[in-house]
Amino acid sequence: MEIRKGKLLNEGKAKKMYATNDPDRVIMHFKDDATAFDGDKKGTIKKKGEHNVAISTVLFKFLESYQIHTHFVQVLKPNEILVKKLEIIPVEVVMRNIAAGSLCKRYGIKEGELLTYPILELYLKDDSLHDPMINVDHACAFGYALPDEMQTIDRIARKINAVLKSFFSRRELQLVDFKLEFGRHDGDILLGDEISPDTCRFWDASTGEKLDKDRFRFELGNVEGAYEEVRSRICA
Amino acid sequence: MEIRKGKLLNEGKAKKMYATNDPDRVIMHFKDDATAFDGDKKGTIKKKGEHNVAISTVLFKFLESYQIHTHFVQVLKPNEILVKKLEIIPVEVVMRNIAAGSLCKRYGIKEGELLTYPILELYLKDDSLHDPMINVDHACAFGYALPDEMQTIDRIARKINAVLKSFFSRRELQLVDFKLEFGRHDGDILLGDEISPDTCRFWDASTGEKLDKDRFRFELGNVEGAYEEVRSRICA
Repeated sequence: MEIRKGKLLNEGKAKKMYATNDPDRVIMHFKDDATAFDGDKKGTIKKKGEHNVAISTVLFKFLESYQIHTHFVQVLKPNEILVKKLEIIPVEVVMRNIAAGSLCKRYGIKEGELLTYPILELYLKDDSLHDPMINVDHACAFGYALPDEMQTIDRIARKINAVLKSFFSRRELQLVDFKLEFGRHDGDILLGDEISPDTCRFWDASTGEKLDKDRFRFELGNVEGAYEEVRSRICA
Repeated sequence: MEIRKGKLLNEGKAKKMYATNDPDRVIMHFKDDATAFDGDKKGTIKKKGEHNVAISTVLFKFLESYQIHTHFVQVLKPNEILVKKLEIIPVEVVMRNIAAGSLCKRYGIKEGELLTYPILELYLKDDSLHDPMINVDHACAFGYALPDEMQTIDRIARKINAVLKSFFSRRELQLVDFKLEFGRHDGDILLGDEISPDTCRFWDASTGEKLDKDRFRFELGNVEGAYEEVRSRICA
């Protein structure tokens, strides 16, 4: 069946979702728009959509080779991918290997400190509440997921971390932390969203240079260059 | 061995700890001082120390009868108890049965909503960081506890909740939520601190009247009366 783009389903800060002629497939369009600090900072990053499609595609395929199931189906355009339609679980899963960002702020830890082992954090996806931290009990008691679903998500997220950490390490990148989103599909839990410099922190393994959205957040300059650099190391 | 009070070890917002002539025992002195909102509100509640000693004593003994081990040894004075000296784990464990307090604020939930099942929350005891929420990974990665210790704490806290909920229900009190603290002693994890209207929310089962420190926090009047009422129902 040839896929045809249907109506716009919703538009987020960095992506638009479109229906298709297949009820089980949606199109994820990656914008060049960037936001930070709960939407307070806005801008665009040239070619970000294309870089993130290229990077996410390699990573989704790599994860599938480890039996980690994702929503990815195929690339349609340089800034559009076809994905399985998920029933999204409104919980952001953050995996952390090295202290950075909100972890440092919240717990008074120095940026760059290697965590004795990975930390998995859960946040409720709710702009009006500013994405508060939750734990498995909240996710279940509030009806966002079942206990066994949260257990599956925990297991998959830790496996993804292990697999990606060594993938990036071979490319001279430290995987500092990253955000994942999951959804239900045909009785399975699939990884959704994207994996890119928008949703991960990557530091150059030898220089420590930040090669991710922190360059945009903190006006570090050469934002596009960072996305390009990550893409070239991953897609080489 | 007769217990003699030694030097002041530390003074918190609601309690003073004293050394004794037994290195394995300390004296916990309950003050009438009350604070709220991260120390911003200060006051005293008449006879609070005595009420909380009486209430905590009944509850610690009741929990011990269910093989839940606590630091409680004996009452020394109406506002002083002798306890085992714990190596405190700086993590506050909050168990919630009904939505109230910070849960409502953080997640936009209406006060009084019955949670589909109990929520266990962890907070780092750190005034300078304003006691931020953590999860088991943080507690372990930051070196505050070992994974198996956190598992034990989780298990004990849920058991305490089940046991206390029915205890209070028989006394026409709803156990809305409560805070626990744990510590290490001789290779065991013991329940420490106190269990009182300072650390629990109690609502009258028929009228919903608040019978706990919320009366002080929100200037609801008859604060002393609430502590007296809880004491009389528990110690009857």
